[in-house]
Amino acid sequence: MTAQRLRRVREGMAAEGISQLIVTGRPNLFYLTGEDVNPHDRLNAAVIRPDSAQILCYNLSQVYAEGYETLVYEDSGQGGAHLARLLTPGLRTGVDAALSSRYLLGLQEALPGTPFVWSGCVEQTRCVKDEEEIRRLRRVSELTDRVFARAFPQLEEGMTELDFGDVFSAAFREEGAGYFPGHPMVAFGPGTADPHHSPGRYRLRKGDAVMADTGMQVDGYYSDMTRTAFFGSVSDEQRLVYETVLEANRAAMAEIRPGVPLRNAHEAACRVIEAAGYGGRYPHRTSHGIGIDYHEEPFDTPSRTVILEAGMCLSIEPGIYLPGRFGVRIEDLVTVTENGFSLLNHAQKGLEVYP
Amino acid sequence: MTAQRLRRVREGMAAEGISQLIVTGRPNLFYLTGEDVNPHDRLNAAVIRPDSAQILCYNLSQVYAEGYETLVYEDSGQGGAHLARLLTPGLRTGVDAALSSRYLLGLQEALPGTPFVWSGCVEQTRCVKDEEEIRRLRRVSELTDRVFARAFPQLEEGMTELDFGDVFSAAFREEGAGYFPGHPMVAFGPGTADPHHSPGRYRLRKGDAVMADTGMQVDGYYSDMTRTAFFGSVSDEQRLVYETVLEANRAAMAEIRPGVPLRNAHEAACRVIEAAGYGGRYPHRTSHGIGIDYHEEPFDTPSRTVILEAGMCLSIEPGIYLPGRFGVRIEDLVTVTENGFSLLNHAQKGLEVYP
Repeated sequence: MTAQRLRRVREGMAAEGISQLIVTGRPNLFYLTGEDVNPHDRLNAAVIRPDSAQILCYNLSQVYAEGYETLVYEDSGQGGAHLARLLTPGLRTGVDAALSSRYLLGLQEALPGTPFVWSGCVEQTRCVKDEEEIRRLRRVSELTDRVFARAFPQLEEGMTELDFGDVFSAAFREEGAGYFPGHPMVAFGPGTADPHHSPGRYRLRKGDAVMADTGMQVDGYYSDMTRTAFFGSVSDEQRLVYETVLEANRAAMAEIRPGVPLRNAHEAACRVIEAAGYGGRYPHRTSHGIGIDYHEEPFDTPSRTVILEAGMCLSIEPGIYLPGRFGVRIEDLVTVTENGFSLLNHAQKGLEVYP
Repeated sequence: MTAQRLRRVREGMAAEGISQLIVTGRPNLFYLTGEDVNPHDRLNAAVIRPDSAQILCYNLSQVYAEGYETLVYEDSGQGGAHLARLLTPGLRTGVDAALSSRYLLGLQEALPGTPFVWSGCVEQTRCVKDEEEIRRLRRVSELTDRVFARAFPQLEEGMTELDFGDVFSAAFREEGAGYFPGHPMVAFGPGTADPHHSPGRYRLRKGDAVMADTGMQVDGYYSDMTRTAFFGSVSDEQRLVYETVLEANRAAMAEIRPGVPLRNAHEAACRVIEAAGYGGRYPHRTSHGIGIDYHEEPFDTPSRTVILEAGMCLSIEPGIYLPGRFGVRIEDLVTVTENGFSLLNHAQKGLEVYP
């Protein structure tokens, strides 16, 4: 499995004209070695060449994997100096984005004639998931469906957002997350109008929108889902906004198939939201990749065209936000198939009023 | 408060000959602005010059602070390109370690004649805490004392490490952590022999060592404490190891005063551990700084001498690890005072056997 991934990364290196690649991102190292090791504030790095692969790690966070030679330095040592000694001077050298500027500047100084370039080729390889990855992503999304199905019926008048976050945390643990790694983003009432709300002590009351945007990590892979519901009652405007976002979610998804630019999904969502009179109330992108990272490539930006390929796994998450009042977001995960897409999560998404 | 910090950072810039400084680390930005904003996968950055300070942020993670001009870019935009346009070409430009290599390489390409250098001057400024910071660090450590005092008596035969982690998580929440941001490192039995153990499903039994190394964040500042106890009984060897580590903890602490190299503390701990016959069973450093980050400067490495200054806040955490059997670590936090040190946490540290 990791041999196949290493082969694909080397193809990417060849395409970019890179003779040695420094990989430091923990998700990238996990992807390439199958081992998820936390180096804390120290440096763990892989150096990949067409015909060899080395892992430099410090003594408390050692990584061993097939196809790699492991070199261990003591906690008292300097990871950056060790890394410089592993490199062949003069070769065009790729670095992943996670490499700290501090280490990069040290390498540029230690190896003055060596051209360093940013390379996203591990991240690009990770975009297209292999079978095992899709299996894990499906599994964690199925467990997350169960968490949401359990959590929403526990809404009670007067509970705080933090309380509702605890309901999710407990349910995630019970469904199999070792430790829940994220922070459940839950919002009530006016908080739902802030796309990145931090849960607080606001107490739930009748007529509030309730938003939960959260996921968990199982076997190294993340889920991510958003559902918005209403508590006690739903107003006509809340209903209109909800139905509009749901239509935007479906319109975006209908664009997902191989060969199509990812931005088509965003544009389809925007058209629905604008037609309903909420243009300007949708301030964020529609999609991000997901896998070993909660947010990962492909990211859709106007400056770069992402063409969908089978095996990509993406969120679809349009929303409408009315500051000071309420917001609605509906987020699903999809994987691109040969002919279209397949949903990873299956939680129902019709309008719900609790209790 | 932030004006004073900005002044100290500018002094650091002058000492390093830096005319403009790019700050991207979230803790650094919190320190300098008082606002803790999560930019997710986008770029938020401050550009500091002797006579001006700007903050570049994206539309969903805006930062406003006295003394700074805020510039907002849309989620659809490219943070790196915006940052390049803020810089004055040709000036010696410092970057903090958190700046991604991807952005640094983009800046080097966009501004070819501009020398970029790594600067730790924000991190160095953060080493010496101001009064408000020490107040917050004391407060969060006091709350953590209460968490530990509550958690250990809840040990029960047959509970898993994950269960005991939950006891800590619940107690942290009750003592005031909004969301518990870290993952309680708790270990039972053989797991205590791994300094960076991941809690799992091992079940507690009589004669096991029990280690908890954890902390929480309150008002932006962290605590960090380790206590090791025994369950049901304690063997002579466990007792010897415990008393040795406790003596090493005290010996290291006795070295803490202004003007002294931080490595003296490590050497003092090592002498005690070696004298007891456990040389080679202490594979990690004795100390790290703490504040807005859980681990931050000053880090003690043989290649760099850290001289203690009043206001520094540090962990003191020697340990002995006997692979496959058990380990003991005792960690306290201290702040360097004019004449010596003051403990931030006060949990008792004599040998305890539960229940």
